[in-house]
This record gives sequence, structure tokens and C-alpha cells, in this order.
Amino acid sequence: MKIVALAGGVGGAKLADGIYRLIPKVELTVIVNTGDDFTHFGLNISPDLDTVCYNLAGIENPETIWGRGSENWETMDLIKKLGGPGWFSLGNKDLATNLERTRRLNEGDSLSQITADFCEHWGISARVLPMTDKKVPTMVKTESGYLPFQKYFVKLGTQPEVSGFDFQGIEKSTPAPGVISEIEGADLVVICPSNPWVSIAPILSVPGILDALKKKIVVAISPIIGGEAVKGPAAKMYREMGLQPSALSVAEGYDDLLTGFVIDQKDKKLIKDIVSSFDGRIRILPTDTWMENRQDRIRLAGEVVIFGNQLIKEV
Amino acid sequence: MKIVALAGGVGGAKLADGIYRLIPKVELTVIVNTGDDFTHFGLNISPDLDTVCYNLAGIENPETIWGRGSENWETMDLIKKLGGPGWFSLGNKDLATNLERTRRLNEGDSLSQITADFCEHWGISARVLPMTDKKVPTMVKTESGYLPFQKYFVKLGTQPEVSGFDFQGIEKSTPAPGVISEIEGADLVVICPSNPWVSIAPILSVPGILDALKKKIVVAISPIIGGEAVKGPAAKMYREMGLQPSALSVAEGYDDLLTGFVIDQKDKKLIKDIVSSFDGRIRILPTDTWMENRQDRIRLAGEVVIFGNQLIKEV
Repeated sequence: MKIVALAGGVGGAKLADGIYRLIPKVELTVIVNTGDDFTHFGLNISPDLDTVCYNLAGIENPETIWGRGSENWETMDLIKKLGGPGWFSLGNKDLATNLERTRRLNEGDSLSQITADFCEHWGISARVLPMTDKKVPTMVKTESGYLPFQKYFVKLGTQPEVSGFDFQGIEKSTPAPGVISEIEGADLVVICPSNPWVSIAPILSVPGILDALKKKIVVAISPIIGGEAVKGPAAKMYREMGLQPSALSVAEGYDDLLTGFVIDQKDKKLIKDIVSSFDGRIRILPTDTWMENRQDRIRLAGEVVIFGNQLIKEV
Repeated sequence: MKIVALAGGVGGAKLADGIYRLIPKVELTVIVNTGDDFTHFGLNISPDLDTVCYNLAGIENPETIWGRGSENWETMDLIKKLGGPGWFSLGNKDLATNLERTRRLNEGDSLSQITADFCEHWGISARVLPMTDKKVPTMVKTESGYLPFQKYFVKLGTQPEVSGFDFQGIEKSTPAPGVISEIEGADLVVICPSNPWVSIAPILSVPGILDALKKKIVVAISPIIGGEAVKGPAAKMYREMGLQPSALSVAEGYDDLLTGFVIDQKDKKLIKDIVSSFDGRIRILPTDTWMENRQDRIRLAGEVVIFGNQLIKEV
């Protein structure tokens, strides 16, 4: 069974990792958001790509899920002592990834090629693709104008109220090599429980990706449980964008893309509303979607795959 | 007594550090070669500036003299494992300097301002100035064309035969703020025992510096002892440029700039030749110029300052 997963940061990395652990029963390609990418200290940083890769490689920080495990902070500590900014944490191990990626980008290699080589080095047998090789920085619209995503997300701790998002230059971007063909060849597309506004929307905005997805069986997992985000500002964003944060809003956001939708059993009461909002043209799987540990990831991934398999047979 | 020292890498840093340890008897400004500066892993690396600063701060690697002491190599080791180049060593501590410098340069701060701030942080009371804030990369002419300096120096281990040097764009560069006024205000200028071809020549090639120096009492220390360089490719360069590597060649290279010249006592036999080459218009100090440890640096610096003082009185 060939699965393509769309993923952003921590939530996406967790489920992608769960699906990856089902190998050899599935063949996995992860298409990753690069809207969060930015330049800091002269380095090209791709937070979501690294979070996904570190998790697939099993070398992630088990506390934060992002960053490397057993990380050391000597360089970062000295930067702060030198008067430099400490708001974006770069450990000694993580720095190696960012330095070598930057070096290769500066030499003209593509982000997708570099990511493929890093994955090989880390022993990752899944394919991990950036959504695009172009720079398409996410800008968050706030009262004080547009903020670069990482400034909003990390430096300002998602404090400012948002009123929109701009994925700069995305209309002129193209999917990274392999993205469209992997979607076309997939038996099932899984939209991971990542932030719909800033992790999944950028992927869907790369010209060509949405059209390719519309021809496939697509299952999304709600990142909103009981009206709150598992992690991050997703629920806050729904409220600020004038929507109720709920699994229903998530499903409605993905609209006619969805074949199936996975919600937490805490949200069972929403099933009727969701089904009616889709005029019955959607199948819902309520289950335990909270992923506390690696076992949870694998269990949820297994359920999603079985659910997807049923949908494939039905269609 | 106000001293301006011109310095490049290890040899220059050693003597500059020796002079610095004579404070409060002297007031020191070090003008440092930036022709070796280059970009690697996206970082703006200034090897000579850092070598001088680390030595003045007493935080240098006591074995290599360049780089930081008690350095760790975790990031560098991981870069090599990722398939990246290991030919230029960047320790965890040194990376902090390079990352924060790069960040500030990208934000528009000047190299001289950043260096001043770093010096303050490191508790350095001497003034350390890059020769210029512009990028003027040294290119080494070889049989296979022009090579960037660090590629020649570190990656190829000074293997290729040199036939010339180009300090790219130097004719359009300007001295960094303070360089000319510090020279003008100096009682004595010391040309440290740095490589004349690639450490001192770039400094002298920045428009305005040579003219300012010509009005001053200038003492140079030969980096060639007994026909060989204390360290690095200086002697090899003299040979490849068709000159005999000797203290005489060093002095003749600095020509009418010199008031006094310090040679190793091993080269005493050259005194007559040097004096005659300068038609008597030069004073020679033969002494022990080898600097094995910090004590040697201070002793030699003291002798240079006393020698310079005599010259000041004589003129």
C-alpha cells in the first residue's frame, strides 16, 4: 500500500513516524511544509523538514519532539553571551544539519536533493520531500502588519492576533521533483494532524498539488480535540479568523478534498454535524488521536491505514 | 606610547598579544588582515581577526594558536558524517563567533563594529580593527588559475606553486573607520612577523594605508628565520616568486616603509647586506624572535618597543 502523508511540524511528524513504523506493510512518502523555513545566523533553517526527518530516524528530542535528542547547547550559549538572539534554539547537533544544508544550497543543490541525501545518511527508507524547492515564506498578518512566521511563532510566542496568512511567492512556485508523481501513485493520502492554517495550507497552495490530491482517496486527522489544539496556535487561529475551533471546522476547511476524516472520540458528538455538512459524502473514524508516545503513533497510524483501506475498497 | 600593529594570522597574533601584555605602558591598536576572510557553510569567517582576538583575550587554542582553547568538535564531526567538507575546522565555540558575526553582517552591521563589540565582550582593552569593512578576498595565482585563499591555504595545504596574488576589489576598498586616524596618532607602527605576501601586503594595499604609514616610524619583524618561515608558506612563496627566502628579502619587500627591522640573531650575518641594501637608512635589531610561549611573546614585544623608542628619539 502506497501512502503519501502531508505533514508540518510536531503533530505531522508524530503521525508520519507512526505510519513509517508500519513498513514493510506500507510504502511511505512524506510531503513536508517548507513555509516555516527561514534564514537565521545566515543559515537556511527548515524546521518542519528536520522535525519529520529526526522523528523518522528516531533521533528526535523525546521531550520537545522537534530538535535532536541528547542535544548540547554550547554554541547557542556562547552566542547569547556574545549578545546574539537566543529565541530560536539551535543545538550543536542540529547546527550540523543546518550548516551542511546551507552549504549545499549555496552551492546550487536543491532542498529536495539535500533532504534525500540526509535521509539516506540517517537510514530513513521513507521518501521525504519538501513541498517545493522554492522559497515560499509564510507571513502572518497581524495588527502590526505581516510578520515572518518564525518571528510570530517562536520569538513572539504566537501572541499577536492573526487576521490572515500570505505564502509569499507560492503562486509562482512548483512542487518539488517527485511530489506530483508520488501523489498520483499513492493508494491513500493522509493529511496529518498538523496546523491546517500554517502547515497544511501552504502545501495545498503549491500550484498542482491540490488538483493532484483531488483525484485521490484522502483521509485527514483533526489536530483539534475538544475545541483545543493538541499543541500550538491552531485553535487560537480559528478563533481569530472568526471560526469556532473544532474538528468540524477542520473538516470544512479541507472541504471536497476529504474522503475520510479521523476525529478524537471526545468529539463523537460532532459526527452528525460533519456528515451533514458534507451531505453524507464523508466517512468518519472516531478514535483516540492523542499521541503521547511512539506506541500511540503506531496504533493511530495503523487505524488510519485500516480506515483508508476500507475507503479504497468502497470507492 | 601609542602603538599600531599590523597583523595577519598566528605570527601576527603572537606578537600583537605580546605588545598587548605590556599595557598599561603602551596603548595598542591592531590592524588586521581580512584578505583571508571567506564564506563557508553560509558563514562569514574572518580567521585572522579571530586569531588576533582570541589571543588577546587569552582564549586561544594553546597548541594551534588559532581557534579557541578547550574546543569541542561535535557539530563538525556530524557535518563530516553528513558528507560535508571537513577541511576547514570550526569548533563549537568558534562557531558561535562566526554565527553571530554572520547574523550581524546580514543585518547590515559593519565588520569593524561587530569586532569592537566582540572585543568588549571578551574584555579586550586594545583596539582591534579590520583593515577594511569591504570584502577583498585574496586570490592566489597558480598554474591552474586563481584559487581562493583558504582553498589554497587549508584545503590544498599550500601545495600549488604560486605565481602571484590578487586582492580582489582592494583598489575600490577604503580603510575601516579608525584605521587612518589610529595610524596618524601612533608613536610607532609595528609590522608583525606575519606572512608578507598574504597577511601584510593586503593591509598595505588598502588605499590610504600605505601613505599614512610612510609618515610614521615603522618597525618590522622578519617572519623568516634562517631562510625558513617560522610557520606557513612564506618561504615557499618567496622561492616560487623567484626570490630567496631571507630576512633581507622581507626587508627589501617593505622597502622605504621601514625605519627599523628586527631579525633573529641566527640571521646576524645578513645585517651588513640589509644595511647596504638600504644605503644605511635602516636600523637593525638582532634578537631571539622565536615565540614558543606567552613569555617569549612579551619579551620580544618589550624589545621591539624599546627599539622603537630609540628610533623615535633618534628621528
